[in-house]
Amino acid sequence: MEIKECWRLETSLPVKFKVQSVDNLFERDQKILISGNGFSKKKIRRLIIIDEEVYSLHGERIEQYFLKNNVQYKICQIISTETTKGISNLLKVLNAMEDFHLLRQSEPVIVIGGGVILDLVGFAASIYRRGVPYIKIPTTLVGFVDVSIGVKTAINHFGNRNRLGTYYPPLAVYLDKSFLTTLGRRNFSNGLGEIFKMALIKDYRLFEILEEYGKELIDTKFQIDISSEVIDRSIQTMLEELEPNLWEKNLQRAVDFGHSFSPLIEMRALPQLLHGEAVTIDMLLSCILSHHRGILSEIDLKRIFNVAKSLELPTFHPMFGDSKILKEALDETTTHRNGKQNLPMIPKIGKFTFFDDVTEEELNKAAIKLEEMGKND
Amino acid sequence: MEIKECWRLETSLPVKFKVQSVDNLFERDQKILISGNGFSKKKIRRLIIIDEEVYSLHGERIEQYFLKNNVQYKICQIISTETTKGISNLLKVLNAMEDFHLLRQSEPVIVIGGGVILDLVGFAASIYRRGVPYIKIPTTLVGFVDVSIGVKTAINHFGNRNRLGTYYPPLAVYLDKSFLTTLGRRNFSNGLGEIFKMALIKDYRLFEILEEYGKELIDTKFQIDISSEVIDRSIQTMLEELEPNLWEKNLQRAVDFGHSFSPLIEMRALPQLLHGEAVTIDMLLSCILSHHRGILSEIDLKRIFNVAKSLELPTFHPMFGDSKILKEALDETTTHRNGKQNLPMIPKIGKFTFFDDVTEEELNKAAIKLEEMGKND
Repeated sequence: MEIKECWRLETSLPVKFKVQSVDNLFERDQKILISGNGFSKKKIRRLIIIDEEVYSLHGERIEQYFLKNNVQYKICQIISTETTKGISNLLKVLNAMEDFHLLRQSEPVIVIGGGVILDLVGFAASIYRRGVPYIKIPTTLVGFVDVSIGVKTAINHFGNRNRLGTYYPPLAVYLDKSFLTTLGRRNFSNGLGEIFKMALIKDYRLFEILEEYGKELIDTKFQIDISSEVIDRSIQTMLEELEPNLWEKNLQRAVDFGHSFSPLIEMRALPQLLHGEAVTIDMLLSCILSHHRGILSEIDLKRIFNVAKSLELPTFHPMFGDSKILKEALDETTTHRNGKQNLPMIPKIGKFTFFDDVTEEELNKAAIKLEEMGKND
Repeated sequence: MEIKECWRLETSLPVKFKVQSVDNLFERDQKILISGNGFSKKKIRRLIIIDEEVYSLHGERIEQYFLKNNVQYKICQIISTETTKGISNLLKVLNAMEDFHLLRQSEPVIVIGGGVILDLVGFAASIYRRGVPYIKIPTTLVGFVDVSIGVKTAINHFGNRNRLGTYYPPLAVYLDKSFLTTLGRRNFSNGLGEIFKMALIKDYRLFEILEEYGKELIDTKFQIDISSEVIDRSIQTMLEELEPNLWEKNLQRAVDFGHSFSPLIEMRALPQLLHGEAVTIDMLLSCILSHHRGILSEIDLKRIFNVAKSLELPTFHPMFGDSKILKEALDETTTHRNGKQNLPMIPKIGKFTFFDDVTEEELNKAAIKLEEMGKND
């Protein structure tokens, strides 16, 4: 026998899941959440982790659903905000899993709520017994179009946004529009921030739709016909970007547009800016940077600012006008991108490119211009 | 445009790494740990997380290595035992990463020590910024033959062994035998417990080697010729089992032999039993269970007990003689195996099968027999 001194392990992990529109997820005859019970011949069991606010609005019909379907269930409510997206709530969710004596494969945890709780419970699911299955049910617009298709889980730590987390695909994601009807205007604007991003980097037609129907989408709480196309286009374009680079081996990511300066500022300005709001101001700043380099036209820049306003998104915040903070945010992002700026930029609406050499001087100039254009309303 | 209501994400994560024998890893001209610096044109930087005891024995030559090679390094010492393998040390390691301003891809964290610290730092590496690269340098025999080839990371939590963790492959694993020379006898026995396992389930020849050279391997601290074959056979057989089932989608795992009753007992008996010791007693109990079902011969059973003794491994512990504890341990393992016992068993030396229907009565009988055979020395 030849004795080896070097051994190689080589394999691959297949990942596959679907995001599906299922209206009336919690009507008695809809069994999608409670099918399959693995080896166990016992009663079907489900652990449900739900945002406290969502529970107060929808808790009763959700409980009725499990009761009527004779499911042994436990509901765990979580206050989910950016400030409570930390270790303490992570441990609370893990505790709920432990107390429930969750089986390892055939009792998917169901998480219901916005981006924060989806990220948090996804993280818990990914580390409990090195991973148990979970089903995501987003209840906010950001959840529908952004968190739905991703596999990133996280909590905030060290004062940094999403500093700890994993890449962990859900078993499935179900979009039930009935949840959207109870959201306020600001939540739609916030979600439209991420849709706006996909339009700017990838989809000129989506930009035109936002330009034309932005206000109406908010007014009707996404209950007009065009809303299905808006959601579909957002998810499709997102999927195109994420699928080939799911684990972010390539740190040049177009979907990071708006996510270069905003992570630090969003955390530091808490609770002033919602995620989609911080992302929007970051995008506007970035557009000014490309405009100053002469690659984005004045006309496009103005159209972009106007759409942001029509979506009722903020176009300025003092921290984005502070070039010292911008520099600090860029340094942190550069570390996160392994020493390279990799700043997504748009040369025109619906296209992207990257900058790697933005200087402090350019930041100063852009910050001044942002204040001028953004506050001018 | 057709508007979709269901979107599918499908991709796969390629995983590839090597385990390599590199004697004299910390000699000045050996550059394997400090090659590659990504985009950064700055000084090469390394964060080293090391077991406190290993540091006291090898710290000086390790520091000299980085100093002489002009590497900007930081050493973080961790007291790594089963009782300190928890959240608090996990946070300590994450803190060290944050303070070091670790780049995301090109500054692999180096972890040096036994199974506990490799698991712990692997977990930290897998969740910091959703994963940073790390290099494992095992310094114990268990580390060499068991932890080296795996991708499982973990900490203990809720009083349960490895309750939280991830599957996270290292960048590379380097085996430097110079670390073995400073280990005590019990550490070799402990590591031989895992080697013994691979022999029992997969490799009759390896069993014969242990039968013949067991004592000599311990006496010489694995510095005799046959030790390379022992390590190679252990790693090879382990690799064969792990590679096709790296993420444990299939919960019927031969390498779980000896890991059915031991996880609970190892934790509860702390610090009495080392991992390989608890695993050994579990294997002996399992062998009695197969013997009682008439599938493992009396002769094989006696040979197995004799080899365990020659490897200076314990053959009994009161908790393994307590059928109430055994029942509790089996229940917990059954939950971990999704409601099925999936107990690996050996019908003869070098082969495995599975039992799914071990009864309390069988456990009682096996516990009595274990006490009789195991204490009889």
